[in-house]
Amino acid sequence: MSLKKFSFNVIDKDKYSRTGLIETHRGDIQTPAFMPVGTQGTVKAVFIDDIIKTGSEIILSNTYHLMLRPGVDRIIQVGGLHQFMNCKLPILTDSGGFQIMSLAKLNKIDREKGAIFKSHVDGKEFILSPEESIRIQKGLNSDIVMVMDECPKKNNDKKLIKESMELSIYWAERSKNSFGNNPHKGLFGIVQGGLFKDLRKESIKKLIEIEFDGYALGGLAVGETQNEMFEVLDDIKKYLPENKPRYLMGVGTPSDILGAVKRGIDMFDCVLPTRSGRTGLAFTWEGRINIKNSKYQKDNLPLDKNCTNFNLKNYSKNYLNHLFNTNEILASMILTLHNINFYQELMKSIRSNIKKGTFNKFHDHYINKLWYFLNIDYFLKNTIRTIVGPLAQLLEQFPFNIVYTLNI
Amino acid sequence: MSLKKFSFNVIDKDKYSRTGLIETHRGDIQTPAFMPVGTQGTVKAVFIDDIIKTGSEIILSNTYHLMLRPGVDRIIQVGGLHQFMNCKLPILTDSGGFQIMSLAKLNKIDREKGAIFKSHVDGKEFILSPEESIRIQKGLNSDIVMVMDECPKKNNDKKLIKESMELSIYWAERSKNSFGNNPHKGLFGIVQGGLFKDLRKESIKKLIEIEFDGYALGGLAVGETQNEMFEVLDDIKKYLPENKPRYLMGVGTPSDILGAVKRGIDMFDCVLPTRSGRTGLAFTWEGRINIKNSKYQKDNLPLDKNCTNFNLKNYSKNYLNHLFNTNEILASMILTLHNINFYQELMKSIRSNIKKGTFNKFHDHYINKLWYFLNIDYFLKNTIRTIVGPLAQLLEQFPFNIVYTLNI
Repeated sequence: MSLKKFSFNVIDKDKYSRTGLIETHRGDIQTPAFMPVGTQGTVKAVFIDDIIKTGSEIILSNTYHLMLRPGVDRIIQVGGLHQFMNCKLPILTDSGGFQIMSLAKLNKIDREKGAIFKSHVDGKEFILSPEESIRIQKGLNSDIVMVMDECPKKNNDKKLIKESMELSIYWAERSKNSFGNNPHKGLFGIVQGGLFKDLRKESIKKLIEIEFDGYALGGLAVGETQNEMFEVLDDIKKYLPENKPRYLMGVGTPSDILGAVKRGIDMFDCVLPTRSGRTGLAFTWEGRINIKNSKYQKDNLPLDKNCTNFNLKNYSKNYLNHLFNTNEILASMILTLHNINFYQELMKSIRSNIKKGTFNKFHDHYINKLWYFLNIDYFLKNTIRTIVGPLAQLLEQFPFNIVYTLNI
Repeated sequence: MSLKKFSFNVIDKDKYSRTGLIETHRGDIQTPAFMPVGTQGTVKAVFIDDIIKTGSEIILSNTYHLMLRPGVDRIIQVGGLHQFMNCKLPILTDSGGFQIMSLAKLNKIDREKGAIFKSHVDGKEFILSPEESIRIQKGLNSDIVMVMDECPKKNNDKKLIKESMELSIYWAERSKNSFGNNPHKGLFGIVQGGLFKDLRKESIKKLIEIEFDGYALGGLAVGETQNEMFEVLDDIKKYLPENKPRYLMGVGTPSDILGAVKRGIDMFDCVLPTRSGRTGLAFTWEGRINIKNSKYQKDNLPLDKNCTNFNLKNYSKNYLNHLFNTNEILASMILTLHNINFYQELMKSIRSNIKKGTFNKFHDHYINKLWYFLNIDYFLKNTIRTIVGPLAQLLEQFPFNIVYTLNI
């Protein structure tokens, strides 16, 4: 059987925004695309069959989490992650770099050996090299493989960010060599360089020399403001190859996505719709809803009266409020499904507006509507930063918690 | 619109076993029937639409839990529990009696006022009288309403059990008066009397005089052995009216159900399939499986390779073991669905075997197969009882926990 080759084509353009099609032998992916996150071989609290019904065409999973539990050997023995988790969709796996920095207890970064770290689960020591990351991702049989990178937190020390970026380039080269030649899969490079435009530009240039099937932007959504992130995107959009997919890693809120699509991004992943679903936060076209708020005890309307999927409009806010207040699993199930469904509705609308040439109008209408409900968090964080620096530093480490706790 | 009246007819008989049909204006219920338990207005970890697809034709919900949270008023304002939880199936609600004894901090039983107790959620004091229980169940708009009873734990003190039974008869009478005349709903009386045959007989006689639409057996599955329970059923089966449904409350394991159907029981409810599903215990035709056992790490077969519902056979034991070991919500979702699906397959097989006149053969084949895996628990409990009486007393109070922890 001859497998379909991995490919990408831009279809429509509306200024910098574009729609496209990634083809893989497991299915096509319309871009701009949002990838639900299936950290440990499951998108938390959702059946994989329902993920497909939301219109998701690809999911993301995590090398770091899967190498710890269940271990790649248990996945290899059944033929890969698709078989293991019963997933018919293409899967993109990250390389482990980001989680090693954010979750594990990092012992040392060794240029040659890789990242030496202790598992956040049981403290066991692991070494992850670019080669080992690619070996694991091959074992998982991922359709899109990410190079191993070093992903520093937001930092103003240019020397440090430059060194980190250069290490990532070296590892990207080793990742590419280890990946070899496989036309049925995609290997993506990861652009680093923090908020420094010249470093970002240099990173892109070197990655293009190595040559990848797609280019991801790493080291964003790590504590900077939305404006800072957009400034980076504005600046580098002209350097990224036109004919390759562009993936903004770990982003983001609906407004982040709108703004990034405007700046030419094709792919996104984020835990926000799933994690928020488990903590009572629902995304809607009218803004966000904290379903635990007591005002919903008397609200017998659904989250979205126009939603026709999964009978979701048969569940009232009153009922969902009760389910959350009694810690029922069904609460997480319904809200997670609702949120992923909303994100895919958003992506569908984004694509159709680009096609019609009306994306900028759509962007301007919703960037404020969908932006507002998270802008307040950035506003408060910035205010706090000015007043109490150290506390802000602490807050920076937990960007999502802020989203949950400041329910205005 | 003229609503269909509540009715029951026996259809097939195979010795004492029988199939029948309960008709309600919300749908028919084939008996013997198993009712999944939806304690707080949700069958835990399952979408209500999926409950229907398992073949469940009625669910049970709890007056006690719903009166505490969300409170009956929030349910009344939307027209009842069906609307509140988006349930198209008929609903049976218990009266609250059992939970007051088992969960709440009971302060006092007052013959006239009712049960005075403190909520297990926040310690708030409540009084539940027979009239209040019926008022709440009317507010919930239950299709089958249970009388309020006093449900003592297993006890050898005959005087105490007799007094309790007589109080339950007095409350049953008051429940009936309060229920009034409603041909579209069923009101069930509850037989008490512990393990004392003459008290059970007296309880039945008095309930028949009051006249109910169905007769439930309470005060079983409260710490006695399966044999003790079967002896009670053997003895009282001749006294129960032929033309009314018979409901064995809170029962049970697959083998409990087989043995009870053999003795003429029509209806069952139990948290076992759902609660076990959340703790890693799967019911299958080959016996029970503790999916957390490390031997399943290499078992790439599904729980039941013949199961065609919900794509359940696409999930391997290897994968389910991983999901449980990483505390993934999907683990509870899949196993709960599997278990309810198994229970409904069991009920379907029971009904078809009664119809064909082969129930006894079916019973004898499976009572050992399905019995064995729980018999060991009773065996161990009885052994422990002989050796360390006080510890056994303690164990008696947590019959389900024993099931989980002794995974042989």
